[in-house]
Amino acid sequence: MNRVYYPYDEFREDLKVLVSKIDQPFDALLCIARGGMTMAHLLGEYYDMRAVYSINTIGYEDMQKNESVEVFNIPDLKTAKSVLILDDIVDSGDTLIEVLKVLGNRYPERTFMTASLFYKKSAKIAPNWYVKEATAWIDFFWTVDLK
Amino acid sequence: MNRVYYPYDEFREDLKVLVSKIDQPFDALLCIARGGMTMAHLLGEYYDMRAVYSINTIGYEDMQKNESVEVFNIPDLKTAKSVLILDDIVDSGDTLIEVLKVLGNRYPERTFMTASLFYKKSAKIAPNWYVKEATAWIDFFWTVDLK
Repeated sequence: MNRVYYPYDEFREDLKVLVSKIDQPFDALLCIARGGMTMAHLLGEYYDMRAVYSINTIGYEDMQKNESVEVFNIPDLKTAKSVLILDDIVDSGDTLIEVLKVLGNRYPERTFMTASLFYKKSAKIAPNWYVKEATAWIDFFWTVDLK
Repeated sequence: MNRVYYPYDEFREDLKVLVSKIDQPFDALLCIARGGMTMAHLLGEYYDMRAVYSINTIGYEDMQKNESVEVFNIPDLKTAKSVLILDDIVDSGDTLIEVLKVLGNRYPERTFMTASLFYKKSAKIAPNWYVKEATAWIDFFWTVDLK
């Protein structure tokens, strides 16, 4: 599979595109750690929003070799009506599906929307908004720049 | 007060300096949102550590005009022995002091250490590790780059 380096400057321009696409109101940002954290930071500043939270997931295979995702550190969303969930890439979609399920069970009266930088057409779920289709392996600057 | 722009490239180089200074082991990263989120993301990738969490704070004045800090969304640190707390800048130190107090009460048997990019000499507490002294108002790239 091709690998492409994704530098900070491209990320910044892609976030500008993303905010131009997001046409629904929300009052909290929730990133999936670690992938969505830098996005959440810049978007929280852009929207002047202090309700910027993170959530953790672990993917694992069970005894029957089924892929599962465990979701933990769910933030308190009592004061939020509408939450924008952020991740860098929607790849298989398994993580996003499980995060939406867990949050929907915990907070059935909230609206959850989703945004990502990249989206793979083969994913089981599409985010509400994304910037680019992923056609290669992406070396995000946050993954490789300190190495 | 002077204002200085803090670009991504300087941040990346400063993080390299920071990791060269950090000489104690830890098994979880905890950023204070929003300021420490981008740091936590890159450092989590650098240390190949999935235990990357965030915590929220709100600063406010009470009826007697005392400055207080409320800390919320405390992550589950049961499996961590030693936690590195991250923030972009230690300014007055009030936030860091309150975060350390709340975490120490909740998890008395854990070790908490602190690291920041910037530190003001007038702060009431110094982080264990920092990169630069703050002598001007800093316009971090995450605050201004989308505006």
